[in-house]
Amino acid sequence: MKLLITGGGGFVGARLARTLLARGQLAGRTIDRLVLTDITPPPADLLADTRVEARTGTLLSQAPALQGEDFDGVFHLASAVSGECELDFELGLRSNLDSTRALLDALRARTAAGGPVPRLVFSSSVAVFGPDPAFAWPGIVADDTLPAPQTSYGTHKLMCEYLIADYTRKGFLDGRSARLMTVTVRPGRPNGAASGFFSGIIREPLAGIVSACPVDAGVSHPMSSPSQTVDGLIRVYEATREQLGGRLALNLPALNVRVADMLDALEEVAGSQVRALVRFERDERIAGIVANWPSGATAARAARLGLAPCRQFADIIREYIADCRAAPNAAQALKGIQ
Amino acid sequence: MKLLITGGGGFVGARLARTLLARGQLAGRTIDRLVLTDITPPPADLLADTRVEARTGTLLSQAPALQGEDFDGVFHLASAVSGECELDFELGLRSNLDSTRALLDALRARTAAGGPVPRLVFSSSVAVFGPDPAFAWPGIVADDTLPAPQTSYGTHKLMCEYLIADYTRKGFLDGRSARLMTVTVRPGRPNGAASGFFSGIIREPLAGIVSACPVDAGVSHPMSSPSQTVDGLIRVYEATREQLGGRLALNLPALNVRVADMLDALEEVAGSQVRALVRFERDERIAGIVANWPSGATAARAARLGLAPCRQFADIIREYIADCRAAPNAAQALKGIQ
Repeated sequence: MKLLITGGGGFVGARLARTLLARGQLAGRTIDRLVLTDITPPPADLLADTRVEARTGTLLSQAPALQGEDFDGVFHLASAVSGECELDFELGLRSNLDSTRALLDALRARTAAGGPVPRLVFSSSVAVFGPDPAFAWPGIVADDTLPAPQTSYGTHKLMCEYLIADYTRKGFLDGRSARLMTVTVRPGRPNGAASGFFSGIIREPLAGIVSACPVDAGVSHPMSSPSQTVDGLIRVYEATREQLGGRLALNLPALNVRVADMLDALEEVAGSQVRALVRFERDERIAGIVANWPSGATAARAARLGLAPCRQFADIIREYIADCRAAPNAAQALKGIQ
Repeated sequence: MKLLITGGGGFVGARLARTLLARGQLAGRTIDRLVLTDITPPPADLLADTRVEARTGTLLSQAPALQGEDFDGVFHLASAVSGECELDFELGLRSNLDSTRALLDALRARTAAGGPVPRLVFSSSVAVFGPDPAFAWPGIVADDTLPAPQTSYGTHKLMCEYLIADYTRKGFLDGRSARLMTVTVRPGRPNGAASGFFSGIIREPLAGIVSACPVDAGVSHPMSSPSQTVDGLIRVYEATREQLGGRLALNLPALNVRVADMLDALEEVAGSQVRALVRFERDERIAGIVANWPSGATAARAARLGLAPCRQFADIIREYIADCRAAPNAAQALKGIQ
């Protein structure tokens, strides 16, 4: 089978690609070809795999040519992040709304020309939810909570969920939307996203670096580890339409955890001297944004697909440490515990 | 003030234009200029008003030029109807999604260039709702029912609701979305829309013509008269953001009525010989479509704006008869009762 991952050079996309290549199959079919599109090339290990073909450029520019190819499956992860879209409205429209539309229309054109009906998993987001003064805001959002996005990012994700459902209803593709929780611990440098500190307060202390936590210890948030996020995307791909039960968008499992619990877990895994590197320095701007986010999420429909959240945040930290140890920069990334 | 009505040549748009011109003001400001865009010219009485400027052509083709004008307010009614969009997927995308996007971007460009922030009322639809196998389907839909559109029409309306909310959040315009109920009794010829019979079973017998009802007498549906629909659009325009209470989309009031009740009202208003012109001839295709529609709607938020549904269906029939009497074709339209 031939697969496409948009955003295949990104953190989640590259991890998904690695997992798929290691499995060798998806939904019972052998993966012969894996096309990765992104604005930057994928990591070298992916480029070295003979099944991988990398294409560099925006999805919007690449989409029209895709209608000349038969894809059996698509993971559509390409996206500008929340913070970028708030700063640049046009970028959000172009990268998250127009690019998805262009991808869907390329797949539709191919189906109309007699090609296979591709299965498509769209990476939506918990950002489709938000507080809504008109109705009670549960704080903890469920599959059937009425969405009220508070950002352009969340707005476009929600619009694309509904667009994909309509293309699916019409038989142009076989789509489903998985709402990702905040993926923690992200490697690399702080990226300035408002949610960045959820990774930062773990990643920086493990590297022996002081980290500022801009919110109170009581703030709670729905999180997922990178590996569980990838497992969720694959499980949603492999689910039958019957298993999805009529609605095509669903929450992925979340570990709902308070900052205080995260730090307790950090101490448990890495010791009190590492935890001590986290300083509470309240940032009113970030605290205000976070106050509009869900304090947690449930995922009853994902549970029926066999997907469970991480049991405890310490497991998420241990996953990050194991990932670092397997990477070339282990010494630097884990300086705080070595 | 200068107003724009897109779809200003259509049934609801022309009626809204007449009502606004008769009032002479909106939200306390004098209406100096009323621009009507549509693919067909508006009725002659509107063209004769010196305040009216009619522009004929698709909204998509007209939108770019709109950014050169200062509009204080916009009623965005232009839309391809549900049945058309099911038959022609491209038409639906173009007429209902791309056209709205083009209109919003023209208004945004004007605001960015220092123009006034226009108030905008978008005519959304009860078609954003539908049964959802994944969750309990209440049948009677409320402001906070989770939308599950079953048509491209409903999908695009819902997407535009969220897009307008985001443009409003960013300060590019002051938008709100009013979900119209099925407007009954529509004048003119049957238009082949699946909902057309709700008007047909009243309009045709009043004209002395036999009408086939394709569904059972027990089928219930949320309806509104033309005048109450127009009143709702105007009230939603005049509402302050505070009155809207944070969420910008709301249901307009509905009279939830069964076909049996409609026919009882027809007999009450026009006599048993007129009612006898309705024959039950079940059409499985139409009955199947209607089975996926809400059986009713509530409108608690509209009620807080002072909007109430019609008290009884006989009032809707009397409104239609009065409209016919005021029009040139009265004899023909009311042949059954004259």
